[in-house]
Amino acid sequence: MAKAKGKKRVYFFGNGKAEGSAKMKEILGGKGANLAEMMNLGIPVPAGFTIATFVCDEYNKAKGKWSKDLTAEVDKNLAKLERAMDAKFGDPEKPLLVSVRSGAAVSMPGMMDTVLNLGLSDKVVEGIIAKTGNARFAYDIYRRFIDMFGDVVMGCHHEHFEAVLDAAKKKAKVENDNDLSDSQLKDVVEKYKAVYKKHVKKPFPQDGKVQLAHAVNAVFGSWNAARAIKYRQLNDIKGLLGTAVNVQAMVFGNMGDDCGTGVCFTRNPSTGKKEFYGEFLMNAQGEDVVAGIRTPVPLKQLSKVMPKAYKELTGLMTRLEKHYKDMQDMEFTIQEKVLYVLQTRNGKRTAEAAVKTAVDMVNEKLITAKEAVMRVEPNMLDMLLHPSFDPKAKRNVIAEGLPASPGAAVGQVVFNADVAEKWRDDGKNVILVRIETSPEDIGGMDAAKGILTAKGGMTSHAAVVARGMGKCCVAGVSELNINYKTNKMTIGKLTIKQGDWISLDGSAGQVILGRVATVEPKLSGAFGKFIAMTDKFRKLGIRTNADTPEDSKRARKFGAEGIGLCRTEHMFFEGDRIWAVRELILAADDYSTMLDETKATEDKKEIATIRKNYATAIKQFEGALKKLLPYQRSDFEGIFKAMAGLPVTVRLLDPPLHEFLPQDKKAQAEMAKRLKVTPKQVAGEVEKLHEFNPMLGHRGCRLAVTYPAIYRMQARAIIEAALKVKKSGKTVLPEIMIPLIGSVKELKIVKDDVLDEINKVFKEKKTKIAYMIGTMIEVPRAALTADEVATEAEFFSFGTNDLTQMTMGFSRDDAGKFLGEYVAQGIYENDPFQVLDTTGVGKLVETGTMLGRITNPKLKVGICGEHGGEPKSIDFCHKVGMNYVSCSPFRVPIARLAAAQAALK
Amino acid sequence: MAKAKGKKRVYFFGNGKAEGSAKMKEILGGKGANLAEMMNLGIPVPAGFTIATFVCDEYNKAKGKWSKDLTAEVDKNLAKLERAMDAKFGDPEKPLLVSVRSGAAVSMPGMMDTVLNLGLSDKVVEGIIAKTGNARFAYDIYRRFIDMFGDVVMGCHHEHFEAVLDAAKKKAKVENDNDLSDSQLKDVVEKYKAVYKKHVKKPFPQDGKVQLAHAVNAVFGSWNAARAIKYRQLNDIKGLLGTAVNVQAMVFGNMGDDCGTGVCFTRNPSTGKKEFYGEFLMNAQGEDVVAGIRTPVPLKQLSKVMPKAYKELTGLMTRLEKHYKDMQDMEFTIQEKVLYVLQTRNGKRTAEAAVKTAVDMVNEKLITAKEAVMRVEPNMLDMLLHPSFDPKAKRNVIAEGLPASPGAAVGQVVFNADVAEKWRDDGKNVILVRIETSPEDIGGMDAAKGILTAKGGMTSHAAVVARGMGKCCVAGVSELNINYKTNKMTIGKLTIKQGDWISLDGSAGQVILGRVATVEPKLSGAFGKFIAMTDKFRKLGIRTNADTPEDSKRARKFGAEGIGLCRTEHMFFEGDRIWAVRELILAADDYSTMLDETKATEDKKEIATIRKNYATAIKQFEGALKKLLPYQRSDFEGIFKAMAGLPVTVRLLDPPLHEFLPQDKKAQAEMAKRLKVTPKQVAGEVEKLHEFNPMLGHRGCRLAVTYPAIYRMQARAIIEAALKVKKSGKTVLPEIMIPLIGSVKELKIVKDDVLDEINKVFKEKKTKIAYMIGTMIEVPRAALTADEVATEAEFFSFGTNDLTQMTMGFSRDDAGKFLGEYVAQGIYENDPFQVLDTTGVGKLVETGTMLGRITNPKLKVGICGEHGGEPKSIDFCHKVGMNYVSCSPFRVPIARLAAAQAALK
Repeated sequence: MAKAKGKKRVYFFGNGKAEGSAKMKEILGGKGANLAEMMNLGIPVPAGFTIATFVCDEYNKAKGKWSKDLTAEVDKNLAKLERAMDAKFGDPEKPLLVSVRSGAAVSMPGMMDTVLNLGLSDKVVEGIIAKTGNARFAYDIYRRFIDMFGDVVMGCHHEHFEAVLDAAKKKAKVENDNDLSDSQLKDVVEKYKAVYKKHVKKPFPQDGKVQLAHAVNAVFGSWNAARAIKYRQLNDIKGLLGTAVNVQAMVFGNMGDDCGTGVCFTRNPSTGKKEFYGEFLMNAQGEDVVAGIRTPVPLKQLSKVMPKAYKELTGLMTRLEKHYKDMQDMEFTIQEKVLYVLQTRNGKRTAEAAVKTAVDMVNEKLITAKEAVMRVEPNMLDMLLHPSFDPKAKRNVIAEGLPASPGAAVGQVVFNADVAEKWRDDGKNVILVRIETSPEDIGGMDAAKGILTAKGGMTSHAAVVARGMGKCCVAGVSELNINYKTNKMTIGKLTIKQGDWISLDGSAGQVILGRVATVEPKLSGAFGKFIAMTDKFRKLGIRTNADTPEDSKRARKFGAEGIGLCRTEHMFFEGDRIWAVRELILAADDYSTMLDETKATEDKKEIATIRKNYATAIKQFEGALKKLLPYQRSDFEGIFKAMAGLPVTVRLLDPPLHEFLPQDKKAQAEMAKRLKVTPKQVAGEVEKLHEFNPMLGHRGCRLAVTYPAIYRMQARAIIEAALKVKKSGKTVLPEIMIPLIGSVKELKIVKDDVLDEINKVFKEKKTKIAYMIGTMIEVPRAALTADEVATEAEFFSFGTNDLTQMTMGFSRDDAGKFLGEYVAQGIYENDPFQVLDTTGVGKLVETGTMLGRITNPKLKVGICGEHGGEPKSIDFCHKVGMNYVSCSPFRVPIARLAAAQAALK
Repeated sequence: MAKAKGKKRVYFFGNGKAEGSAKMKEILGGKGANLAEMMNLGIPVPAGFTIATFVCDEYNKAKGKWSKDLTAEVDKNLAKLERAMDAKFGDPEKPLLVSVRSGAAVSMPGMMDTVLNLGLSDKVVEGIIAKTGNARFAYDIYRRFIDMFGDVVMGCHHEHFEAVLDAAKKKAKVENDNDLSDSQLKDVVEKYKAVYKKHVKKPFPQDGKVQLAHAVNAVFGSWNAARAIKYRQLNDIKGLLGTAVNVQAMVFGNMGDDCGTGVCFTRNPSTGKKEFYGEFLMNAQGEDVVAGIRTPVPLKQLSKVMPKAYKELTGLMTRLEKHYKDMQDMEFTIQEKVLYVLQTRNGKRTAEAAVKTAVDMVNEKLITAKEAVMRVEPNMLDMLLHPSFDPKAKRNVIAEGLPASPGAAVGQVVFNADVAEKWRDDGKNVILVRIETSPEDIGGMDAAKGILTAKGGMTSHAAVVARGMGKCCVAGVSELNINYKTNKMTIGKLTIKQGDWISLDGSAGQVILGRVATVEPKLSGAFGKFIAMTDKFRKLGIRTNADTPEDSKRARKFGAEGIGLCRTEHMFFEGDRIWAVRELILAADDYSTMLDETKATEDKKEIATIRKNYATAIKQFEGALKKLLPYQRSDFEGIFKAMAGLPVTVRLLDPPLHEFLPQDKKAQAEMAKRLKVTPKQVAGEVEKLHEFNPMLGHRGCRLAVTYPAIYRMQARAIIEAALKVKKSGKTVLPEIMIPLIGSVKELKIVKDDVLDEINKVFKEKKTKIAYMIGTMIEVPRAALTADEVATEAEFFSFGTNDLTQMTMGFSRDDAGKFLGEYVAQGIYENDPFQVLDTTGVGKLVETGTMLGRITNPKLKVGICGEHGGEPKSIDFCHKVGMNYVSCSPFRVPIARLAAAQAALK
């Protein structure tokens, strides 16, 4: 606490001047900093003050006790606010009413709790009625306040209040809250207070200062609520001290028909189109718009209803966007025709909008290309790289709603967030369907492919969160009739139950029955321009991991500059090939004994005898390889053609042989029948090849040490294919990669065999082609001895999947059981299989690169683990000075952007 | 080849002067170097020359072609030898006869081929008869020469010649070769030549130079014979270029009854006793003694037969031992009463003899204590640390032979070397029984616990190799009647078949029927003195890996200075404990869900509800731990008492939980019955806990992250036990070790729980005790981030078993399938699980130690993997600057010696 002494805890804004500014987000939170900024700019902002973020940390550390300094500063600022507003807490004549809102340095929509109309009491309400003559208004804000304060601050659930209101409406036979009479509302207020007393065990507090202290504490407390923690986890938000608290004089959008409230964006947050965008409600308070209780009206209509306010608002929108040089998301309230701005912030936007606004703003000379590149979070692009609905596919549209968050989602209907998480864990695609979503649903929303709600507008919880997550959302489909108890929904006569398939078009707002066919995404329009813009900044090459000509072509369209990892094991499974592989495996043991025996002698006669003894095994083993050769050759031909002119790194066979054998009895019997052996022999082979820790077993180049003929066949296939494609006039740049190397001698032995085979092919074909031989660095020992390994390698490719497994001692297949706990407890910042562990694994990557380059300054270094498509890891690869990263085709654009950002940082 | 130009290839010795010396072993091989040295000392050595070792490499690289330089030098030295001996190749008047022997820098007994009497031809034989008048002698050496040359040089097997000789003896109705008449021997010679011609397809060469070239080539070629390679592998002999070739003028021990030949040691090579020791044969050639064809006579008897020669010989023995300051092993020949020394070398000896001679020679002031310590190979001591026969056990001695190599062996009889290897691989203890052994049997001898032969003396192949291997051997048991075809042997009326149990006492030369009980070894006598002598030199502390009071006591007797690794998992298996562990496992899943749910809230009421929901799981899980606590406490009490005054490092639970569950259906059913669940539930639990790579799974401190209560129980047990033992007046120094740490945060979280529990115990017991908390470094990431980890650790103990697995990517359970091939191909010098891989894994050990000490200069660092008892690895640990090594109790004396040698190097 000592270090906080002397620190300013509370910052005032009012009378056209503020103590803070937009630069002070860390201290004031985003909301507070922007309120201060706007105040200084002369924007009409109600006065107020902000309690700094570190006070939240102080408060939580002091277990909920206020320091003397805090109490004094809050009192002082409250007095200042009273003076500025010419009003007073609890004064029926000139009552001060305030809103209390959270606001951290990073926006966390829906996570924090807001209280409006604080300062109301029985006495003050009477004063307001006397002053405004509007009893309905006075009772309405009072009942709202009791509800919000009770729910948000004191933990008395909203539903208890809602029940009272519903009963009142039923009794009065009206449909809307607005239709209740003054006296009916007054009665509601009394009943609300009774509900409050029943659940809180104390009467509703009548002292504004007491209300304020409770509300501030609630904001602070909500920082560590389970759902807030979960949100920060999901969104990888770290290092913040807490939330600020904004206490601001109330303005009212619900004082009558010359009042209103709304939300607006300076550009369309879904598409990025440059247009004034938003929605509003007349005679309403802010939460009515956001909460989705009433469906709001498009902003455009404000120009008809209140042209002056509309003109003033759009003027301010333009001004603020220019000031912040970014698309603004604003909240406004019109009280008796006077416009107030309650909040502005950089608007959340979809990936499509982010990309379009970035490109547009460069064209508008609002920002530079560098700024534009830095403005789009690379992972966001993932959304643009998902399939969209095939325009030719038939659509059975069963309902339409608001296009709340674009994208195409196909999944099984689920009505509950927990079920959504469970089904996702079971590998299902789910669509979460809710009447409206709430912060408790965050986990389920994250688990769902798409979100569908019956209530709520474009700025409802569902819409905002879905856009933040880059998830497809259709909101406010009023025809939906959802029954949580029966897990069914009806649209007219149609009944859809849990588990039924539907499709959502988030851009069109359509709900479609069944599964709509999808097509692949394309790099075109603003997206294409944006990605092209990133290329001039990056230093890293971007390659792709692709095993087929199709993948290669796709990646090339996305801008891949070569293949960084072509796995050959997949090729061994296809069609008839697996049978050749299995024949080979059955003969492998005898074949290897034969090799050992021939190694032990130099006598040619003896060798001949040995080979005669093992003639069957030799025929079977080498025969199987001969069968595989033409397949492999044509595999590589296809890939070389698709990648003509670009380098192709082919990794030789990597998995242990047992992966090619069937594990279940039935398949084993089939194999036995086909290969004319007994099922017992097959089972015996499976047993013999079984490994306790296959990750660390007989695989990769270790297979080649035992059976050199396998890599020889692959090397031959690669070079023969390369020569053939070259002959057709195309440029082929083959790079042969030897996996799982642990020592330079191992590499040399395996490489010498490969070289020997390649030279044989050159001799046979009487022509040559340039090629490279390198190795994967995935065993820690290889990284530690990279100076030695580099004497035999022309390139290194860090296989960070396996390197992570071995360096951290985590089996990727098993670690799921406890890794979540590890990330939750902060032992590791991220799942190390998603984001490269730069502290530990990264040290080996750095060491390996450095040592390798000491031996061979021209050593080409890349990464081909899944981290090669992950922005933070790409940033690390850039810092290490790699030549390229390689990732899956769909992540190539993301990698291009991330590489550009890494270079610009 | 260029670099060998100008190099001297052939070194002459003769006329009391030699071009080489004892210092030139690398170039001349051990034999050649010592021949030169003896010549310079004026010892009576027949003249000759040595072809340097690197020529062998040249020859093999040139695929068997001699360089011009080599031909010229050999010719020159041959001429010099002819002059020195006043004799000439092929001259019937003054024929020069030579022996051709291999001799590498490191002795490889039995591996290399020797040819005697080279230079003989039809013409020369007649000359010798004319000159000596001894036709029997002349034909005998000629037939020996044809046999040896044919067998060793030209690949015509000895058995073909033996068949001719046997037929001749049968025909002549005599038993011994010596009993054949001149003409009968002449006939044998003719038939030998015919045999030679038949198999070699060429007549027997009559030109001495041709014979010499063939013989030299055969020596060179034998360097790469499969069995030579195997011997080098078995004995870890590396980095040599090849063997030298010694060409030396012949002297004859078989010219008549004033001739003889023998082998002698300056001290007893079995016991180390200071006495002239050896054996000889009158009228015989050298190979008769070694080959075990005739059983030789103890050296002592030479003093009676030829007192002058005996006196001269013992005088030379004393002189050479003083000169070389080590026990000598010499070969001598007496030709017509004149003594020649053909070879001297440091004598191979048993561990017992090595230790005794080292201690004695220090007492005799022949060598210093430092030299004595450096003279015993630490691994040799292993032999002295094996059990010996219980003196009280009854022995059913069925035969007696020569005590060829001391030790006690119990095993199942096997008559074939290959079978011995197979049975060993199946985990059986075998005794290899052979009529006589030959180099082809090396693998089987290595596989056997003991070796028994029917023929051969103390210097027979079996005896020499067994002593070299530190293996028990009883040789020359003439009553044995072995039938290889039926796999049986008889001793009188007793029949013993393959698989029957016998015991061998290698020190008494006894063959005992059945299994004799054994007793533990002791550190006493010369052994005790020797080991004590080592202690003043070493810097490393020596601890032991011990899990029980018994092991602790044993290790303490062997000089352990503490426990470096006390594994606690074994304790979980004993008696009823396993049932408590299994109860715990069945409840673990629910228990962990309960922990997660309580973590997600701060509401006390909510927590109470959650705990109520999971009451059964809590009761079962925590109840199981309560059952385990007293067991664990008493485990630690016993160990603390046994190790009073010395530090005890206890490793907290390490293996994955599934290791405590039964895998087979029957045991699962038993478990289900006992714990009152269904077998399906048990099977489900087994399935749920199954891991693809358990080595990298949910184990070690990861269990504590999920289930903190387990380590808490263990910490409590340790501290409660320590307090109790302390109360009894003993000093307890507990060190708590947390395994499988990968990051400092992980260590801190787990350690904080342990600390909290310890402080609880202190509070409860109202007393304290000093303790340490440290961690095992076994995950590469921990070593890489050791500077961070050291902020939370008071000591590091390198768990090099797992560190090796993860750094090299080898699963110890699976790598056996290919690791042999890796060592054979020289990819890794040794099995990295036996000898620490200093290049790769060692780098992490060095880095980890250095980084840890940067953070905490007082950090205590040790090793507790199996490498802690392996001399080369101990040497590395010394260099790295560790505080201690820890090894199994029986290896403590080995570690003490190795640590001393490391410090002296």
